[in-house]
Amino acid sequence: MPITSFHPPHRTLMGPGPSDVHPRILEALGRPTIGHLDPLFVGMMDECKALLKYAFQTENALTLPVSAPGSAGMEACFVNLLERGDKAIVCVNGVFGTRMIENVVRCGAEAIRVDTDWGKPVDVAAVEAALKANPDAKVLAFVHAETSTGAVSDAEKLCQLAQQYDCLSIVDTVTSLGGVPLYVDKWGVDAVYSGTQKCLSCTPGISPVSFSDKAIAVIKSRKQPVQSWFLDMNLILGYWGEGGKRAYHHTAPINALYGLHESLVMLQEEGLEHAWARHRTMHNALAAGLNALGIEFVVDAEYRLPQLNSVWIPEGVDDAKVRAQLLEEFSLEIGAGLGDFAGKVWRIGLMGFSARAENVRLLISALAKAMQDQGYQCDVEAALAAAEALL
Amino acid sequence: MPITSFHPPHRTLMGPGPSDVHPRILEALGRPTIGHLDPLFVGMMDECKALLKYAFQTENALTLPVSAPGSAGMEACFVNLLERGDKAIVCVNGVFGTRMIENVVRCGAEAIRVDTDWGKPVDVAAVEAALKANPDAKVLAFVHAETSTGAVSDAEKLCQLAQQYDCLSIVDTVTSLGGVPLYVDKWGVDAVYSGTQKCLSCTPGISPVSFSDKAIAVIKSRKQPVQSWFLDMNLILGYWGEGGKRAYHHTAPINALYGLHESLVMLQEEGLEHAWARHRTMHNALAAGLNALGIEFVVDAEYRLPQLNSVWIPEGVDDAKVRAQLLEEFSLEIGAGLGDFAGKVWRIGLMGFSARAENVRLLISALAKAMQDQGYQCDVEAALAAAEALL
Repeated sequence: MPITSFHPPHRTLMGPGPSDVHPRILEALGRPTIGHLDPLFVGMMDECKALLKYAFQTENALTLPVSAPGSAGMEACFVNLLERGDKAIVCVNGVFGTRMIENVVRCGAEAIRVDTDWGKPVDVAAVEAALKANPDAKVLAFVHAETSTGAVSDAEKLCQLAQQYDCLSIVDTVTSLGGVPLYVDKWGVDAVYSGTQKCLSCTPGISPVSFSDKAIAVIKSRKQPVQSWFLDMNLILGYWGEGGKRAYHHTAPINALYGLHESLVMLQEEGLEHAWARHRTMHNALAAGLNALGIEFVVDAEYRLPQLNSVWIPEGVDDAKVRAQLLEEFSLEIGAGLGDFAGKVWRIGLMGFSARAENVRLLISALAKAMQDQGYQCDVEAALAAAEALL
Repeated sequence: MPITSFHPPHRTLMGPGPSDVHPRILEALGRPTIGHLDPLFVGMMDECKALLKYAFQTENALTLPVSAPGSAGMEACFVNLLERGDKAIVCVNGVFGTRMIENVVRCGAEAIRVDTDWGKPVDVAAVEAALKANPDAKVLAFVHAETSTGAVSDAEKLCQLAQQYDCLSIVDTVTSLGGVPLYVDKWGVDAVYSGTQKCLSCTPGISPVSFSDKAIAVIKSRKQPVQSWFLDMNLILGYWGEGGKRAYHHTAPINALYGLHESLVMLQEEGLEHAWARHRTMHNALAAGLNALGIEFVVDAEYRLPQLNSVWIPEGVDDAKVRAQLLEEFSLEIGAGLGDFAGKVWRIGLMGFSARAENVRLLISALAKAMQDQGYQCDVEAALAAAEALL
């Protein structure tokens, strides 16, 4: 039987990403494709860069979208800044810290690992001790917003430490960009990467990155070539860089960039501070509702990401059954636990366009229903009222 | 002034890619985003793999779309098959062969370069001599359809030689897939990559790849880890592989894959042989028209890619002015020369949805007009008639 066109259903996406994509962005994806060297496309690229600078709160000239998902953005930061034999201190408080270690090792560099318990922010004192003990470290890398746990770390303090100990900072902001305060310049971040499918409400596939002048100087004075041709910033600069000359490097993902552009225009329309406040408001309402259902958060309130809510699965409730029921009965997706948290934790996303009142209401009532079907006792009405009071 | 939504014009894309994107594919890009681990999405992934196997004419289990443009597909082949200290024979008859060399070197491997003049197919005898002289070579790499020149090489013969001399073959089919005959299994190709924005009529951003069992065995028995985490096939297999277990690796570019799926469904509907014949027919008509205008091809008819027509810019005609006029007056894009061909050659694409009669007619009349405006003498009516006779 021949394969026919794929028509996906409408889902409500409240997992760890992709988040709900705004209809304006879906519409933008289908606009007519033009050439990647077309003057009009080049103009759009300049606008994308300007909008990304706003989103990252930076004046970094090297601020652009890498033509691949966040994992490639991570790799872009590591392969450009590290050479064989270098040393990097990597903070691990969840899955994405361990992925950073993988990247360091594959660069032929040495990774000094600083562990913090999952669900906690990166331990600043332990990082300082590692910096003291490794004066030859070139890079300090950490995850701002751990998508596997929902904890936010003190990026400002960690970047200060990096500067103090003469290290370049690499910061994962995949889940933080657009959802919680992030100030690349004010905090002195040297290399930062993010994703489009979280708080920017865009489809996955693109990774915004930004490099400080200090980072650029390091990239330009490398002894060995960057091991990835595709991600070599020296070459990508020729296409995305200042000065108007757009040397062909690779063919940009035209329509995906239409989507990113539209999502960044929307972020600019709403305003960063308002976007951060909206995520906070929706989180507060969701948390009140979940607490009223008797559900507990993994992360202490102080370090909790509003956009990524990790909660303990109540005893006696079957993880997979609940998620399957949510998907089938409510067309609602929530996330499973990753790594050590598999089977123990749900991850409920309130990212970008998903961070709105109707999603909070749906999640509380649908989750309560799915748990009740397994004999779990809870008062849905009270939970909805608790949320509603804060919306 | 705030930046507003970007609304691209409608262009006719007859450069070296992106080609015109079929409206069905543009529509598919804007379908609702669902999760990358959603059972329905996983079903679509399986269909994509089946359709790619058809397009590549292979039964290779490891056949999948890499979540990044063709350049990343190229890199995926090299970083997975090569280790530091390995040796690769690389055929260079245009820009993309030199890019392969860059990839080899960045893997810490040695590149043995076999040059052929630009515009000619890879010199088979020279390749055999290089294979004889380098019995320790692990890889033979070449470009099937050189996008910078428009020449097609004898991939079947070259892959045979690779087998005879116990090398793995890496073949660039970015511009050939869907446009000219390509038989991965019959020819014994070991690693192949392509792009979506050429004869598949899809938007850029994804790179279909396929690896033979022999290549997989080499990847699985590597001594050193693959230097790219993002492109490590050992890990990607966990998400895209057989057996139903879809381990999270990176977030797939959901909507871009909707587009690829739709384009592959359309290729299946048309049938590979019909698609190849259509490209040939349109090329013959275009060539007759261009010849009647007094324009000469760079590549001999025998080795000419129907989908990528490199022609010499007539003396006294200004390259940049003509391309600018075509874009402004006719919203028609053709390609400039790359590398050694810059300023001397135009590259006229007839790829995928661009390979249709109305495009052939438009190109002939618009190009004639732009050249005539610079004093070039030609008979447009005769050229159109010459093309029409073959349509």
